[in-house]
Amino acid sequence: MPSAIILLSGGLDSATCLAIAESDGFAPLYTMAFDYGQRHRQELIAAAGLAQRAGVAEHRVVTIDLRAFGGSALTADIDVPKDQINDASPPPQNNSTLPVTYVPARNTIFLSYTLAWAEVLGVSDVYIGVNALDYSGYPDCRPEFIEAFQQAARLGTRLTDFQIHAPLVHLTKAQIITRGTALGVDYAHTHSCYDPTSTGLACGHCDSCILRRRGFSEANVADPTLYVD
Amino acid sequence: MPSAIILLSGGLDSATCLAIAESDGFAPLYTMAFDYGQRHRQELIAAAGLAQRAGVAEHRVVTIDLRAFGGSALTADIDVPKDQINDASPPPQNNSTLPVTYVPARNTIFLSYTLAWAEVLGVSDVYIGVNALDYSGYPDCRPEFIEAFQQAARLGTRLTDFQIHAPLVHLTKAQIITRGTALGVDYAHTHSCYDPTSTGLACGHCDSCILRRRGFSEANVADPTLYVD
Repeated sequence: MPSAIILLSGGLDSATCLAIAESDGFAPLYTMAFDYGQRHRQELIAAAGLAQRAGVAEHRVVTIDLRAFGGSALTADIDVPKDQINDASPPPQNNSTLPVTYVPARNTIFLSYTLAWAEVLGVSDVYIGVNALDYSGYPDCRPEFIEAFQQAARLGTRLTDFQIHAPLVHLTKAQIITRGTALGVDYAHTHSCYDPTSTGLACGHCDSCILRRRGFSEANVADPTLYVD
Repeated sequence: MPSAIILLSGGLDSATCLAIAESDGFAPLYTMAFDYGQRHRQELIAAAGLAQRAGVAEHRVVTIDLRAFGGSALTADIDVPKDQINDASPPPQNNSTLPVTYVPARNTIFLSYTLAWAEVLGVSDVYIGVNALDYSGYPDCRPEFIEAFQQAARLGTRLTDFQIHAPLVHLTKAQIITRGTALGVDYAHTHSCYDPTSTGLACGHCDSCILRRRGFSEANVADPTLYVD
């Protein structure tokens, strides 16, 4: 069976991706997480736990210094916005207005490292949990970006069959939770909050918490997350 | 005048790129180098010196751990081949046979970091000294890869006009040296060797030294490089 690498952030989406890759028949599985100076360090702890529970062949954490570039509430001293998500607004049609949680070129850098590891391992299949519906308007979560990066990767390496699987790209958060629950994902071991407490409780009010709460509610699945309120 | 970022390795090609970007009218200029555990550390010293002499607005060195992936003579304990360059062989038509000096996905990772910095600075123009003729068959030096990455970058960031300038891509090493010499580049301050001595002398026999020596000879320009022999 062919191998696959899953980008594993420790969040709900990538945990579902890991289960989908396994269900798609890829084995052995490799997982990769990124320590990019994110304020929410619980992500990395959750990713390592998910990888271990899934019995992956190797979980690799790459340290990259995105803080050196600044410009995001996820890595710099900018306040994470609370209770501001706008239900009515569609994803922006251009890239001019982005939330402060956007990290410049983050998925491009993540996919580049994954590509390097894939080429060394000789693995042509990569899973990434990007989502173009319940997302915050990040341009590097759109399917057209993923497809363009895949093309660059095929031309720039020996992996001429390189394929990026983005199985969640057109799913709502509720559909993702429904799919993952059917595959046996225990979401208690995932972390979504952009601004957790020091003891790991989710704030309940950042964009990521709001989308997560609403997703469980709409999927009619009990939300195992520990929120502050 | 618009700004530009130049990927500056400290070698002959990127030094020429820096001079071309300046000659193209971009200002102020920014330069970016990568400490990726390369065995030839003199590169980084040369890059910093070139940036300072050119009076760039900022020279940024990003540390990335490509050694973690292994697989290249430039970063691992694999011998750098000597006197093996094959004049007669064209660049390979597929990516299956690559020299041991190839570093997996290197230019993809480099361009990703440059893209992140470009987005933070609001700079849409990037120069990279890739070359599709006098190269060693690296797939990530081909113009079709550069174009595909540019497309991914435009889709994945706010920089919808992002442009990668690769002014050397179709030039021979001799033509590059002729162009740079006309622009006043002092190649004594550049470094090419893959396997220099501890005091910084060029070996004279790796692929990079052979191409450099031949380039100066064909351009009828005196080679200022200090070779071991």
